[in-house]
Amino acid sequence: MINTIPGTLQPGALDRRAGLGPNRDLIGRPNGRKLLSTPALILDLDALEHNIGVMAAFGRKSGIALRPHAKTHKSAHIGALQRQAGAVGLCCAKLGEAEALAGEDAGPLLITSPVVGPSALARLATLCDRTDLSVVVDSEENVLALGAALQGRRLTVLIDLDPGLHRTGVPGAGAAVELARAIQDQENLRFGGLQFFSGPTQHIEDYRARSRDVEDRTANLVAVAEALRSAGFPPAVITGGGTGTHEIDARLGVMTELQVGSYVFMDDQYSTCALYPATASPFRTSLTIDTRVVSANWPGLVTVDAGLKASTGSLLPPRILSGAPEGAIYEYRGDEHGAVILPEGARAPRLGDVVSLGTPHCDPTVNLYDFYHVVRGDDLIDIWPVTARGLSS
Amino acid sequence: MINTIPGTLQPGALDRRAGLGPNRDLIGRPNGRKLLSTPALILDLDALEHNIGVMAAFGRKSGIALRPHAKTHKSAHIGALQRQAGAVGLCCAKLGEAEALAGEDAGPLLITSPVVGPSALARLATLCDRTDLSVVVDSEENVLALGAALQGRRLTVLIDLDPGLHRTGVPGAGAAVELARAIQDQENLRFGGLQFFSGPTQHIEDYRARSRDVEDRTANLVAVAEALRSAGFPPAVITGGGTGTHEIDARLGVMTELQVGSYVFMDDQYSTCALYPATASPFRTSLTIDTRVVSANWPGLVTVDAGLKASTGSLLPPRILSGAPEGAIYEYRGDEHGAVILPEGARAPRLGDVVSLGTPHCDPTVNLYDFYHVVRGDDLIDIWPVTARGLSS
Repeated sequence: MINTIPGTLQPGALDRRAGLGPNRDLIGRPNGRKLLSTPALILDLDALEHNIGVMAAFGRKSGIALRPHAKTHKSAHIGALQRQAGAVGLCCAKLGEAEALAGEDAGPLLITSPVVGPSALARLATLCDRTDLSVVVDSEENVLALGAALQGRRLTVLIDLDPGLHRTGVPGAGAAVELARAIQDQENLRFGGLQFFSGPTQHIEDYRARSRDVEDRTANLVAVAEALRSAGFPPAVITGGGTGTHEIDARLGVMTELQVGSYVFMDDQYSTCALYPATASPFRTSLTIDTRVVSANWPGLVTVDAGLKASTGSLLPPRILSGAPEGAIYEYRGDEHGAVILPEGARAPRLGDVVSLGTPHCDPTVNLYDFYHVVRGDDLIDIWPVTARGLSS
Repeated sequence: MINTIPGTLQPGALDRRAGLGPNRDLIGRPNGRKLLSTPALILDLDALEHNIGVMAAFGRKSGIALRPHAKTHKSAHIGALQRQAGAVGLCCAKLGEAEALAGEDAGPLLITSPVVGPSALARLATLCDRTDLSVVVDSEENVLALGAALQGRRLTVLIDLDPGLHRTGVPGAGAAVELARAIQDQENLRFGGLQFFSGPTQHIEDYRARSRDVEDRTANLVAVAEALRSAGFPPAVITGGGTGTHEIDARLGVMTELQVGSYVFMDDQYSTCALYPATASPFRTSLTIDTRVVSANWPGLVTVDAGLKASTGSLLPPRILSGAPEGAIYEYRGDEHGAVILPEGARAPRLGDVVSLGTPHCDPTVNLYDFYHVVRGDDLIDIWPVTARGLSS
């Protein structure tokens, strides 16, 4: 049955995706943003450059290296901007991201999840030939499989330490020292250091509560690093943290580099986090979803063209940033649409009007889109592919 | 700053995506499914062909046409199989889907949401030149804009009728007749009929409750169709419904065609719906997400490589279909990982083992992936692109 389907069905669609999408003819058009086919992922270049500059200055001032996490943006363009601002390399959550981003502009890449399975390990070995790669491990079984898969190639591995989440990582000092020995026993593996990342901690809104959480969890990191040193395995690199904890991690002085990610965009979640103890967050929201009113037949609400396929609905619905009256809220209306609910007496946006939404959680939202529409003000400057979109394997 | 980024960053990644992904070398390999880089979207071809055949037989027996909704699968291959089984054409939720799927194998395409905005209307006009297209409308303003944008081309439009959700559609008979007149006034538009779709109704689990809901809502559809006939605008086509209501819609006999979508996959949501009054659902689950255990350091749980970027977390977490002991449940652990929580005393899956998950809601889940891994049993038969992935604009 399959063979009866002409091969000519596919190329058209794939050619389109390999291009720059339906809005490519609007690049360079003044006020092109207002003409876009929607929903469209919008990247404010002024805010992006500002954010990259602010974090780079923070790293320099604090004497801590930056290895920004590309799981957030999945973009070769943004990664290159981060490297130009001084980042020592990039993090990738998965092997597929690293394959897509590998290249001179990305610099050294660290894969921050264990890579497991025969097909994935073979790909990892091949990738070693074309980029400066390192990967985390959390089990002796994985270390042995890695050693065998590399077929003579050399690779730096870091031990992932569980910050108390029971997701990935070794539990503590004993397991870490044992694993360092297993690494040492593999001729082609080099022990590079420790990784320590607590995702939920990043989003604790209150600065003092977040700081206490980091301090509590970091006690185990300090103990593990000390045990490794005593056993003759000093961790050259201690990498981890994120946008939510970068100031705290730098102050504690245990980590040697920060895996900051979301600071480039500042999504709705981070916008409510007090990132610094005494001063306001210096970061700006650079990422929005532009939607359009496609139905306006009822009092009190209008329907826009962005639903669950255009935003991630696992958390709160996105905030409305512009295009609707003060007090209006967005609600999901299925996969393809959303409702803008208007406050009593407010004037409704009209059919065709653009309503801009925030991103509740930037990482999985970006992962829905093939392109960033890069703007300065309302001018469409460029369209950048989301280079590693969907590459979760 | 942008111009300093070499253009050579992009082609590698895009070439990879335009291919068949990291598992392409496993096509044809016996038991290739077990070797896949994961997470991977798996399509059981036996179950898919069974489902397409069952629904085609239902349509023939009931004397009702099928226009399956491609928003579910976004696949040229699956659309072609539906057409070969007798479908009169396909539905697309958005213009971008229709652009990607247009071609002789898809047949006539109906866009089931209003198309609004200057750029989108220009694209719609161009698409008319290369496929048999129709689109729904729900406002006179949109009808006027369409008439102007077509620049002499002819297009069939259907009036979308609100089933009571206030998402899209005209509210009732008066507005429908007015809109039919506005369509008649546009020389290049032809009034093709009515569309009527209530999404939430599809998922009411109890058959009798769902049936009552359909009957209540359909009363307005009958009244609107009658008013249009009396005013001289007989609706040649009345299109709508879905997998959840197809048996009820066919029995009521008001619709002339069904927009069934999810029946091809049967996701977790539909698996709990009683689709028929007295007999079990004849459809089988054809779509799963294969994940792999990547960390197994703690008693009572293992970590797999599929999180919120690999499944849609807006509803319940996915069911575990195989690869873990009876009673094990999946929980999201962030964007990149999930936990398989084991029942007391159960033997844990081992590092590298594959755990297969259901899809909580198939449409937005498919929209995360570039490829279907098409299997018979555990043999990887083929890899099909998700042709219209992400094309929500």
